[in-house]
Amino acid sequence: VVIVGAGFGGLTCARALKRAPVQVTLIDRNNYHLFTPLLYQVASALLDPAEVARPVRSLVRPLANVDFRLGNVERIDLEARRVVTDRGDVPYDYLVMAAGSQTNYFGNRSLEAAAHGLKELPEALTLRNLVLRRFESSAWETDEETRKRQLTFVVVGGGPTGVEYAGAISELIRLVLARDMPGLDPEEPRVVLLEAADSLLGAFDPRLRAAAERALRRKGVEVRCGTQVAGVREGWLELGGGGRLPAATVVWTAGVRASDLAPGLAAAAEVVPGRQGRIPVDTALRLPGHDDVFVIGDLASYEVDGQALPMLIPVAMQQARHAARSIRDLIQDRRPRAFRYRDPGIMATIGRNAAVAQIGRLRLSGFPGWLLWLGVHLVNVVSFRSRLLVLINWAWEYLLFDRPVRLIVAARPEDPDSDRLSDRGRQPRKKR
Amino acid sequence: VVIVGAGFGGLTCARALKRAPVQVTLIDRNNYHLFTPLLYQVASALLDPAEVARPVRSLVRPLANVDFRLGNVERIDLEARRVVTDRGDVPYDYLVMAAGSQTNYFGNRSLEAAAHGLKELPEALTLRNLVLRRFESSAWETDEETRKRQLTFVVVGGGPTGVEYAGAISELIRLVLARDMPGLDPEEPRVVLLEAADSLLGAFDPRLRAAAERALRRKGVEVRCGTQVAGVREGWLELGGGGRLPAATVVWTAGVRASDLAPGLAAAAEVVPGRQGRIPVDTALRLPGHDDVFVIGDLASYEVDGQALPMLIPVAMQQARHAARSIRDLIQDRRPRAFRYRDPGIMATIGRNAAVAQIGRLRLSGFPGWLLWLGVHLVNVVSFRSRLLVLINWAWEYLLFDRPVRLIVAARPEDPDSDRLSDRGRQPRKKR
Repeated sequence: VVIVGAGFGGLTCARALKRAPVQVTLIDRNNYHLFTPLLYQVASALLDPAEVARPVRSLVRPLANVDFRLGNVERIDLEARRVVTDRGDVPYDYLVMAAGSQTNYFGNRSLEAAAHGLKELPEALTLRNLVLRRFESSAWETDEETRKRQLTFVVVGGGPTGVEYAGAISELIRLVLARDMPGLDPEEPRVVLLEAADSLLGAFDPRLRAAAERALRRKGVEVRCGTQVAGVREGWLELGGGGRLPAATVVWTAGVRASDLAPGLAAAAEVVPGRQGRIPVDTALRLPGHDDVFVIGDLASYEVDGQALPMLIPVAMQQARHAARSIRDLIQDRRPRAFRYRDPGIMATIGRNAAVAQIGRLRLSGFPGWLLWLGVHLVNVVSFRSRLLVLINWAWEYLLFDRPVRLIVAARPEDPDSDRLSDRGRQPRKKR
Repeated sequence: VVIVGAGFGGLTCARALKRAPVQVTLIDRNNYHLFTPLLYQVASALLDPAEVARPVRSLVRPLANVDFRLGNVERIDLEARRVVTDRGDVPYDYLVMAAGSQTNYFGNRSLEAAAHGLKELPEALTLRNLVLRRFESSAWETDEETRKRQLTFVVVGGGPTGVEYAGAISELIRLVLARDMPGLDPEEPRVVLLEAADSLLGAFDPRLRAAAERALRRKGVEVRCGTQVAGVREGWLELGGGGRLPAATVVWTAGVRASDLAPGLAAAAEVVPGRQGRIPVDTALRLPGHDDVFVIGDLASYEVDGQALPMLIPVAMQQARHAARSIRDLIQDRRPRAFRYRDPGIMATIGRNAAVAQIGRLRLSGFPGWLLWLGVHLVNVVSFRSRLLVLINWAWEYLLFDRPVRLIVAARPEDPDSDRLSDRGRQPRKKR
């Protein structure tokens, strides 16, 4: 069995195959598994990468039948039953595609160049460096107009990521940076959250949407619903109504689409991709016409009552367990069963002391919602060590209003070919 | 008072001026203070950046008269008494130059391109990513020759940094990666430490040098003393005797020189730089002919018995306190006193359970040396939080033989101009 992707789908599937009579190869382009719900805390300088990510090898170490490979999957050869990577081919008997999703810039190159995504660890680190750098630059800036633009942070997209990040960044500014920088006028920095629809958090109950919006405003975030973004340029946004918003930093959380592997996979299987480029699957989560290929998580479009299941971690994990069970069934010549989703509820946090949660008929907001959010996330952070460290960091920040990890630091850009020992030679590194 | 550099010298000086009737501006090109003695632990995936670095702003927060500025100092205008930075000029009455030192490639560009330094945080992160990537690549490699080269790590320079890093990387491989990668032949990876002199750790007592070498060999490091490096190319080293050593990864710790600000400063003051490009100073640590400019730490060459004091943290810190005292003296029209160095001893660690220490007449090696090293470093790690986290990480690794932070992750390269809001526009970011 080959599993492509070591996110929540791929990792859960590998774990669910622990006692199955199969040899599993797990392939990912990163050597870590990322706990995505806390990624925004990396981008707001609250957590360190090692606190939200774990090396895949240490996670699969207890699984005797799982081997990990770091590599970029280029395409799937369905005919020859091989996964083609930049490092070589890997043949499979059963394939589980769990390659996930990525930020969707809707093909707009200027948007992609001028805005920052918040889906992956390097993006989160880049954003953190950038936000901190804006404040350091503003300390030198004498032109008020320029300084205001430097200190305007626009988050586009009122989904959970946008809401969480806008709240976190506003707290970083008002609770931490304002104290760090004695010369800073606390009224100057602005955090603006833009949403095209009429309200934030469309997936939630209207009462919770209103509570989230109130909580954000209380934290100093300017919430603008019903506002389209017509274009993003270096230094400003063009709004749908024709207005302009000067802003040095734009975070784009307004779109997600399936992995770049989706179009090729769809074409090879001759299926039409669904919304967001996701691959339609049969009731057993298989690629139509290919009974040995499972597609799960964000990459898969599994419809219930005519609507695809949302791109959520519980969906990916439940589908992963189902795919693993189906593979065991197929090996024993049993027919795989149909997948059924059990909705565990949804939640989003709005910084310190506030969150909204919707679980079955339960609706929580404010501090009770936040306590629930805290509990659920602490229980689910992957390992004991992370849990302890995350707890220390959170407690530190909560009690002292301090962000311990606000360092501006980046590894030198890596030359992807440097470990291939090619004779081309590397570019001399720039002097700092 | 303007202080250039927020390392041990600059930071200590700012702290020593806390109660002086002066306004201090501290300038650094990074927004963090780095605890350099533990940098090699970042490069060997044992500690995270936030555990060995602290934001300068949070360190100077208790100092009411200190303002921090993030910027690159380009030169010092001694005539006009201004520090010229890429962000603007800063005038001074008194200047403390504490710009430190950097890796010395002796002007050899091919060496600089092919080898990796270990002096700064981005270098340590780059090295960590690289070492982990080598192992991941080797898992795909079928050619034995290539695989052996991928798994050969050469550290050039038998000083404390080289000894510490060679020991740490050998432990990373033998204790952690060997368990993470079931397919890895534990005999294949090699760690080679090259030193041109006849023994390692030239500054230490001969008995301790021998103890260090034995400890390294026990940990699986190949120690080759009396071996010159004639050249480093992509994939191999040329040795002095004419031999060749195939190795994908070369770490260069064999040379250190003063900051790039030194030549300009020496020329402006019309003094001849000393060994390693360091600036000669008078007995009060001042630039000759410029009574308002102090030069301290690695940047300064202060001779005792005809020999410059070594580039060590205690030297920088004692000189910083002395410079601060002299500034207070000058303000009160008193003559500054001559600087005298009190040697607190030196130490170096060779991984788990082994270190060498030389304090006054005391000589410690092996486990007692290591306990002393541990104590001294824990006491000196800058803040309580780091101390606690570092202790947790160390305990974790010590008890479980696990490296918790071995993630391969880099922030996207930053465009240094991107926060200036120029109209040039950024390069579109590459798709991953």
